[in-house]
Amino acid sequence: MKNIAYIENFDDWINGFTYSYPVKVRFSETDLFGHLNNTKVFVYFEEGRIEFFKEIGIMQQWLTSAGDGIPVTSDLQCNYLRQLFFDERLDVFVKINAIGKTSVDLHYMIKNHQGEICITGRGRMVQVHKKTGKPFEWDENMMEKLKSSIVSANI
Amino acid sequence: MKNIAYIENFDDWINGFTYSYPVKVRFSETDLFGHLNNTKVFVYFEEGRIEFFKEIGIMQQWLTSAGDGIPVTSDLQCNYLRQLFFDERLDVFVKINAIGKTSVDLHYMIKNHQGEICITGRGRMVQVHKKTGKPFEWDENMMEKLKSSIVSANI
Amino acid sequence: MKNIAYIENFDDWINGFTYSYPVKVRFSETDLFGHLNNTKVFVYFEEGRIEFFKEIGIMQQWLTSAGDGIPVTSDLQCNYLRQLFFDERLDVFVKINAIGKTSVDLHYMIKNHQGEICITGRGRMVQVHKKTGKPFEWDENMMEKLKSSIVSANI
Amino acid sequence: MKNIAYIENFDDWINGFTYSYPVKVRFSETDLFGHLNNTKVFVYFEEGRIEFFKEIGIMQQWLTSAGDGIPVTSDLQCNYLRQLFFDERLDVFVKINAIGKTSVDLHYMIKNHQGEICITGRGRMVQVHKKTGKPFEWDENMMEKLKSSIVSANI
Repeated sequence: MKNIAYIENFDDWINGFTYSYPVKVRFSETDLFGHLNNTKVFVYFEEGRIEFFKEIGIMQQWLTSAGDGIPVTSDLQCNYLRQLFFDERLDVFVKINAIGKTSVDLHYMIKNHQGEICITGRGRMVQVHKKTGKPFEWDENMMEKLKSSIVSANI
Repeated sequence: MKNIAYIENFDDWINGFTYSYPVKVRFSETDLFGHLNNTKVFVYFEEGRIEFFKEIGIMQQWLTSAGDGIPVTSDLQCNYLRQLFFDERLDVFVKINAIGKTSVDLHYMIKNHQGEICITGRGRMVQVHKKTGKPFEWDENMMEKLKSSIVSANI
Repeated sequence: MKNIAYIENFDDWINGFTYSYPVKVRFSETDLFGHLNNTKVFVYFEEGRIEFFKEIGIMQQWLTSAGDGIPVTSDLQCNYLRQLFFDERLDVFVKINAIGKTSVDLHYMIKNHQGEICITGRGRMVQVHKKTGKPFEWDENMMEKLKSSIVSANI
Repeated sequence: MKNIAYIENFDDWINGFTYSYPVKVRFSETDLFGHLNNTKVFVYFEEGRIEFFKEIGIMQQWLTSAGDGIPVTSDLQCNYLRQLFFDERLDVFVKINAIGKTSVDLHYMIKNHQGEICITGRGRMVQVHKKTGKPFEWDENMMEKLKSSIVSANI
């Protein structure tokens, strides 16, 4: 496997994923080179990330006017190991790699239906205050949910 | 020319356009058939429409919290006369065809750099109230701006 | 119901649909007005159309180098009856309205999970020759498949 | 400035850019949080990269059937320093950071019209053979053009 800075041990890294969300490559997501356009992978990351956040129970708070925070992308990284093609069915795996006071570092892995790893990635999301745009600490409830998603993955 | 329901006389129709906005076909907007994906034309319509609204001075009111209305798309129609390809420079022409109490019917024409008409279209935008989502009448100021854009086109 | 030119009798029109494909509104498909951006509906139309073509068995021929034809969009029309929002689960209904020598007129209907019709649409696809770009007649096999999809819908 | 792994000295890094391409944030590129959706930055990177490749004279070879190679994205990285908003005019700066036998490492910087750095990024493009999909060495002509773009930047 390729040398990717954010992956220490590939087998351990793969085994750390327990959540995945299915996507299928749309026609409008291909480009004239006949494969998935590179920019569309981040749409899959976003969809996987949101479904993951819903799964662990912290997405709703961001969508209602009740909460003061919204998640913004701090950085993103993506490695393209295999080209993806129209109509391929993919699984977008998402896991938490690290939790900060106001942020969370997520890792991503996309597999095709032959089980081959096509894409790896990572990126930090930061919760910012809706009005100030400044980093905004996780409340206890959210922090607990973030943590428990790691614990359950490690069992 | 093709028979298109919303165009009575093609020459008159073409001559009615006085405003245009330039766009260029992006790589990520092509698809595996090697041409511009059909769904992306509506992005050009939207961009042309917004620039047109800015030109005649009614866009700002929708973007600030001052105004109570936002424009929503009521319907859209598009005829694809010629395929468009990566890197082509296009001009998106926009004009007002008719003005209602709460809506405006816009017509669109996209030409390539050889001056060939590649796309024609039309669609009605309705101003709705931000909170109720119901149609919301143009105020006098907006109505005047919409009307004067037609007058100036006809001179 | 609204008066829509391509729908004669709304109840009959609705009952004519037998095929649907599920989609969900992605975060990246919303815009700053907080709803689905108008341009993204055509992505749903395309996805529904392709899945429909796969279902009736004519998509494969276009994707392999074996066939000489590719389908291109001749025109598209869309009526927005209700706003769509992030995370809504939708069903994209597709049916054949009419078959020409080289083309097919498709109708679309998008319902939300309350069963409300949010979007209606139609558009003509033309089969063109890969090299000349000119309209290319359906072969007997394809024509039969197109026709049988209507017959089975009417039973 | 933030600590970003691929930037050693921020001032030197900024001064290394000599090429930029203008873009404007489209309405359809925003999302319901009211800012540019994170996935769209990569569209700007791609557009800037392609214009840069055209500028240094290596893009044409990839678009014609004459050449055997096409460029594919090997990895991408992006740091979001400031939120971007609808209608902002941006400059996408692109430069070559390193040249390999079959690849090139590009760096990106996006500034708003106040001259503030909003986005930084990098990513490696690899030339692969159209048929085999395997890495494909730069020919002398391309290598020269890649190199001269760095030299001219350093003068």
